[in-house]
Amino acid sequence: MSRVAYVNGRYELYGEAGVHIDDRGYQFADAVYEVIAVIGGRLLDEEPHLDRLERSLRELAIAMPMTREALKVVLRETIRQNRVRGGIVYIQISRGVAPRDHGFPKDTAPSLVVTARRIKGASAAAVNDGVGVITVPDIRWSRADIKSTSLLPNVLAKQTARDAKAFEAWQVDENGFVTEGSSTNAWIVTKDGELVTHPADRSILNGITRLGVLAAAKRQGLKIVERPFTVEDAKNAKEAFLSSTTSHVLAVVSIDGKAVGNGHPGETTMKLRQAYLANFGLAGGEFR
Amino acid sequence: MSRVAYVNGRYELYGEAGVHIDDRGYQFADAVYEVIAVIGGRLLDEEPHLDRLERSLRELAIAMPMTREALKVVLRETIRQNRVRGGIVYIQISRGVAPRDHGFPKDTAPSLVVTARRIKGASAAAVNDGVGVITVPDIRWSRADIKSTSLLPNVLAKQTARDAKAFEAWQVDENGFVTEGSSTNAWIVTKDGELVTHPADRSILNGITRLGVLAAAKRQGLKIVERPFTVEDAKNAKEAFLSSTTSHVLAVVSIDGKAVGNGHPGETTMKLRQAYLANFGLAGGEFR
Repeated sequence: MSRVAYVNGRYELYGEAGVHIDDRGYQFADAVYEVIAVIGGRLLDEEPHLDRLERSLRELAIAMPMTREALKVVLRETIRQNRVRGGIVYIQISRGVAPRDHGFPKDTAPSLVVTARRIKGASAAAVNDGVGVITVPDIRWSRADIKSTSLLPNVLAKQTARDAKAFEAWQVDENGFVTEGSSTNAWIVTKDGELVTHPADRSILNGITRLGVLAAAKRQGLKIVERPFTVEDAKNAKEAFLSSTTSHVLAVVSIDGKAVGNGHPGETTMKLRQAYLANFGLAGGEFR
Repeated sequence: MSRVAYVNGRYELYGEAGVHIDDRGYQFADAVYEVIAVIGGRLLDEEPHLDRLERSLRELAIAMPMTREALKVVLRETIRQNRVRGGIVYIQISRGVAPRDHGFPKDTAPSLVVTARRIKGASAAAVNDGVGVITVPDIRWSRADIKSTSLLPNVLAKQTARDAKAFEAWQVDENGFVTEGSSTNAWIVTKDGELVTHPADRSILNGITRLGVLAAAKRQGLKIVERPFTVEDAKNAKEAFLSSTTSHVLAVVSIDGKAVGNGHPGETTMKLRQAYLANFGLAGGEFR
């Protein structure tokens, strides 16, 4: 875990780092966040993450607590103080502290929390053998494109997956389409060789890794189709995989207990994982 | 505001009362809450509020942090220390503090925060002249029946109402039906004299005041129909009103700028307000 946390202007010992009980992040989930991978001491795709952070804030009319340049300094200092070479840096910004009342408070400064910690990332087994997913109804609000802390449905979906010994839960909308996982984006490669993922509309979070994978696929000359796919489409696909900041790209080898393809990570998936990482000059995706 | 807050076993000065940055309430909205009215030093409908609190916790598999009897002692002590005779007591319970990870942590104790503060309640003008509401799309998750802190859509709806100089925003589902307000339940009285409100399914929070109003209506021999109604139904209704812990019953005299009925509080509404309050031995709804 983080040893030192940045909280509203101060670097505090993790164990003592708190926010006020009337912080709107605590009472209303009136807050946004980002998680950025740190590998070899370097932040992966920092600018796109900060672009998305600023977009989320704009959508909720929350001000940036400081300039982007100042925030980048805080990220680096938090990473340094926690001696993280391989791990993540976590940023959370809420609308701030005010006596509880649903509407926006006036003249309240946003709260900023930054932590950094070492993580191991996906296990070698997950990378080499792939992982299983289950499907659950997508019960989230209609603005999943905003990276808010309104994550209770994601929490419940992830726990349902764990209870089923699965790595992830793919959320399925009312029309039977897979939107995304509880903390990852969802992809398939059809038998025709098309790379398919849900379009980045309001029903999914436009993953920064998702964008990196799309760019890698383009470089490889793959046929990319951003359209919703059904659970049946996925079960009948040649390959399936998921993407996220901490998993990069992981093959999905079973869906609701049914093997995808031959039940092993697909060739396109593994090439995309390599191509995604190679773009950062990385041979493997280990957090070190 | 609260002068003293109960936080995880201790009574703390409000200004210094905090929760850990890794509290799941802060990072995931993995928490539930209740607001109970205090009038004349007495808690209104305390048992139904605590019943609902325990139900919300059960739905999310969060443990009660203490017995109900112990919690009742904490509520009273917090009210006493804040010298509240007329106001509210606020209870929030989260799944607790754990390093950030979507799934449920193991062996983590839930966090409990209790605050109490004086409030004035609805103004005499709001009670006597009624209030206006606007309508907005209901963009919430599918489990509005759980009183969770996943309230970001409610925050946005309330702010949209304030920007429009309205008291409340009525949320409208994909089929055109009014579910409920951002922090209140929604009601109409049809021209046939039927009292109509949305059934207590997963798309609304089953207000404790809602239940009190239903009981009052039953005592008055009103024809009660729990069914969804449309915005058009509401605009063409004889009367409309809203209910909540802090507003009790307030006439809705305009919807999206269009007058309901004759544009004044309806007779049935005002009688229901009186009957609801009379059940607590109260003549008026002032928080004192």
